[in-house]
Amino acid sequence: MSLDQVLDRIDAGLPDALDRLMELLRIQSISTDPAFADHCVTAADWLVNDLKTIGFQADRRDTPGHPMVVGHGGDSDRHLLFYGHYDVQPVDPLDKWDHDPFAPFVEDTPNGKIIRARGASDDKGQLMTFVEACRAWKEVHGSLPAKLTIFFEGEEESGSPSLVPFMEQNRDELTADIALICDTSMVSPGVPSIASQLRGMLKDEFTLIGPKLDLHSGHYGGPGLNPLREMSRIVASFYDDETGKVTVEGFYEGVHDTPQDQLDAWEDSGFDQKAYLDNAGYTISHGEKDRSCLEQQWARPTLEVNGIWGGYNGVGSKTVIPSEVHCKITCRLVGDMDPDKLRDRVRAHVEAQLKPDMKVVWDNDLEGSPASVMDITRPEFGAAQKGLSDEWNREAVFAGMGGSIPIAGYFKSILGMESMLVGFANDDDKIHSPNEKYDLESFHKGIRSWARILAELA
Amino acid sequence: MSLDQVLDRIDAGLPDALDRLMELLRIQSISTDPAFADHCVTAADWLVNDLKTIGFQADRRDTPGHPMVVGHGGDSDRHLLFYGHYDVQPVDPLDKWDHDPFAPFVEDTPNGKIIRARGASDDKGQLMTFVEACRAWKEVHGSLPAKLTIFFEGEEESGSPSLVPFMEQNRDELTADIALICDTSMVSPGVPSIASQLRGMLKDEFTLIGPKLDLHSGHYGGPGLNPLREMSRIVASFYDDETGKVTVEGFYEGVHDTPQDQLDAWEDSGFDQKAYLDNAGYTISHGEKDRSCLEQQWARPTLEVNGIWGGYNGVGSKTVIPSEVHCKITCRLVGDMDPDKLRDRVRAHVEAQLKPDMKVVWDNDLEGSPASVMDITRPEFGAAQKGLSDEWNREAVFAGMGGSIPIAGYFKSILGMESMLVGFANDDDKIHSPNEKYDLESFHKGIRSWARILAELA
Repeated sequence: MSLDQVLDRIDAGLPDALDRLMELLRIQSISTDPAFADHCVTAADWLVNDLKTIGFQADRRDTPGHPMVVGHGGDSDRHLLFYGHYDVQPVDPLDKWDHDPFAPFVEDTPNGKIIRARGASDDKGQLMTFVEACRAWKEVHGSLPAKLTIFFEGEEESGSPSLVPFMEQNRDELTADIALICDTSMVSPGVPSIASQLRGMLKDEFTLIGPKLDLHSGHYGGPGLNPLREMSRIVASFYDDETGKVTVEGFYEGVHDTPQDQLDAWEDSGFDQKAYLDNAGYTISHGEKDRSCLEQQWARPTLEVNGIWGGYNGVGSKTVIPSEVHCKITCRLVGDMDPDKLRDRVRAHVEAQLKPDMKVVWDNDLEGSPASVMDITRPEFGAAQKGLSDEWNREAVFAGMGGSIPIAGYFKSILGMESMLVGFANDDDKIHSPNEKYDLESFHKGIRSWARILAELA
Repeated sequence: MSLDQVLDRIDAGLPDALDRLMELLRIQSISTDPAFADHCVTAADWLVNDLKTIGFQADRRDTPGHPMVVGHGGDSDRHLLFYGHYDVQPVDPLDKWDHDPFAPFVEDTPNGKIIRARGASDDKGQLMTFVEACRAWKEVHGSLPAKLTIFFEGEEESGSPSLVPFMEQNRDELTADIALICDTSMVSPGVPSIASQLRGMLKDEFTLIGPKLDLHSGHYGGPGLNPLREMSRIVASFYDDETGKVTVEGFYEGVHDTPQDQLDAWEDSGFDQKAYLDNAGYTISHGEKDRSCLEQQWARPTLEVNGIWGGYNGVGSKTVIPSEVHCKITCRLVGDMDPDKLRDRVRAHVEAQLKPDMKVVWDNDLEGSPASVMDITRPEFGAAQKGLSDEWNREAVFAGMGGSIPIAGYFKSILGMESMLVGFANDDDKIHSPNEKYDLESFHKGIRSWARILAELA
């Protein structure tokens, strides 16, 4: 059996694969900080060279920001694109790390071996699972398992400013049958997970202005309209506290009820609600009264306030009625919710609450993206489910995702291409935080998983 | 008529009085910044020396903070204490000043001559009106008009930490028939004003805590309780938006209705409601629906939010559900409202709103003081009303004060002494702001006013 040969090859080659990942992890490819721009180029070059060793025709493709890496290889009727990102989050606060974030090492823990480094899980370790699967396949078969396009980005952690123009300029080159993305986590440890839907995102920010200058609360307290009080009233008015629903008119337009069998499957997916709540210090599920944690997280829209600030915040007291107060919000979108329409609705809600002598100013620089629902009837999803279930000895689950992964939306809207997201991260990987790690099991079984999926698809 | 001689003496001596004030204004007696501690001592010494030239037995009295100045002079059955403060507010932002804050000068303006300097109005110019009146009286009569105790503080702008201990340690020395205080403004330009009541103050601050760490809104948005949303709900719950009243149970206990004739007199006091609203950029009076601006400002309690902060406030967006959110509040108290009881009530209101998984932490370092209502039937008030009306050719008014002047409360609670507040500042004096000024008319007629009041009392 040739798959067995590939899997054996992966097992035997794991130390070398780990060495290669360590090399990549040593490169300080922080994309938000211009001081690390050269390191991003180094990481792109490293990937180009590595892809070439597996027979890919690969290039660094420069952009106004950090470079893309594009590689092509294999020949088949089936054309797969694989996406990952080589850039990593900043490392501050550095003093919270127990070690140098860019000096990777393997650590023995009671839960098994882990790879410690910035980017180990997000996303260098994950993207290398696919690359290493291709390498083992090539070594056993002498060729790649399908027509493959590799697409690595270096700006995922800094808003992907070059992504959409690059995709628009290289539409034909980047369009495949489907995009495979390895940048997500498993529902719970050991439960292989395929994303069936991703929430969209709407960002907005507003400033409420009351008096034309900061006032003294002894002089104007009472007759003076206080924007802190008005901001509180407006934010509170977003919610129906009885039901936990958002009150913005039309907010739920485009939201579809999740079928009961899907809900049942989710509840059976290994998600540990108690651990989820414990991790945050909650004893109960909040939010919508009649929905489970999982349904709320994966299949329901939200309007969350991410910041409010105004007035005095120093030591002691200042008797001020501030002129203005600020608020940042993000909505998570599901189903067919339209971000542009929703933005108008949220703004109309706020504006309808304004009293005389109040003004609102909106930040018009914040974007929105719709939700993605995957077509899990496609053969790639069946192949992934079989490959993952075989590898992990556990039925792979189709899981929702609470987060928003804009790349899947762009593949759809710009290239007309569906995405399939399979990832091996765990919730305790501390991505974006100090002491990031990736389980060695995730890396090893991740490589094996891709080999199995590719075998199913080949 | 000896009063006329005193008034003539004041007019003739105005240039010299102004020179003395300029000297005092040159001293950078900022009390909040330890770097200026020596300047505070210099100001205290300057005042001690100046009081000595008028025949006061005066001393600098050191404290753990900035020194007090105490002077005694005159001999009569009537014993008056005069209070003022020689310390001034910090000058930042310095770039908003059109000149050096400590290089005082007289400027001609379309509204008359003004004295420009930090402290010109608050409170050096005001306290010197009384000192100069005493000087002129002494020069004409050879003696002071009553038994006088002068009490100057150097920490009024920094919370008066030494005041209460000093008063307690010098109880007998500081207790007079009544305290005269010159640290307030006129209801409107040219309208001499005597405070008939001062609002009290309650300060409080609380932190609402939800999850035990900052959460990702993609992962926890929905089922996770967001303290920003809960803070908004709680702050909004303080108010009945229909009536403008505060909903905290028992909030209005101890509040007495203002008699209609008092309300009528206030409305007739020259207060310009339109100018008051214009100055803040308001077109209407907010707050309690059935109360005028003046009644709300002078005779009604308030609960104002002075600061809210929590979550992300940088550029762009951060999908965070913060662990905690902070809120600062101050209440203005009237009538017999008890600050300690009120604090308990406000806290009980907040605590009654808490949902499961929320905690509130209170700042226990913030103080409260009750309102003061002056006994305007005392002879000193009649004397002041007559003296002021004569000087300003306009009936002096008994005015409420929106602000809180704790010293009057301390005189009452520690020394059992009533206070009478007469001040000549105007609302456009920019106290606590760049380009502070004091009208030369306020200074000149202020001195003459005190001479007339002292003549009435002598």
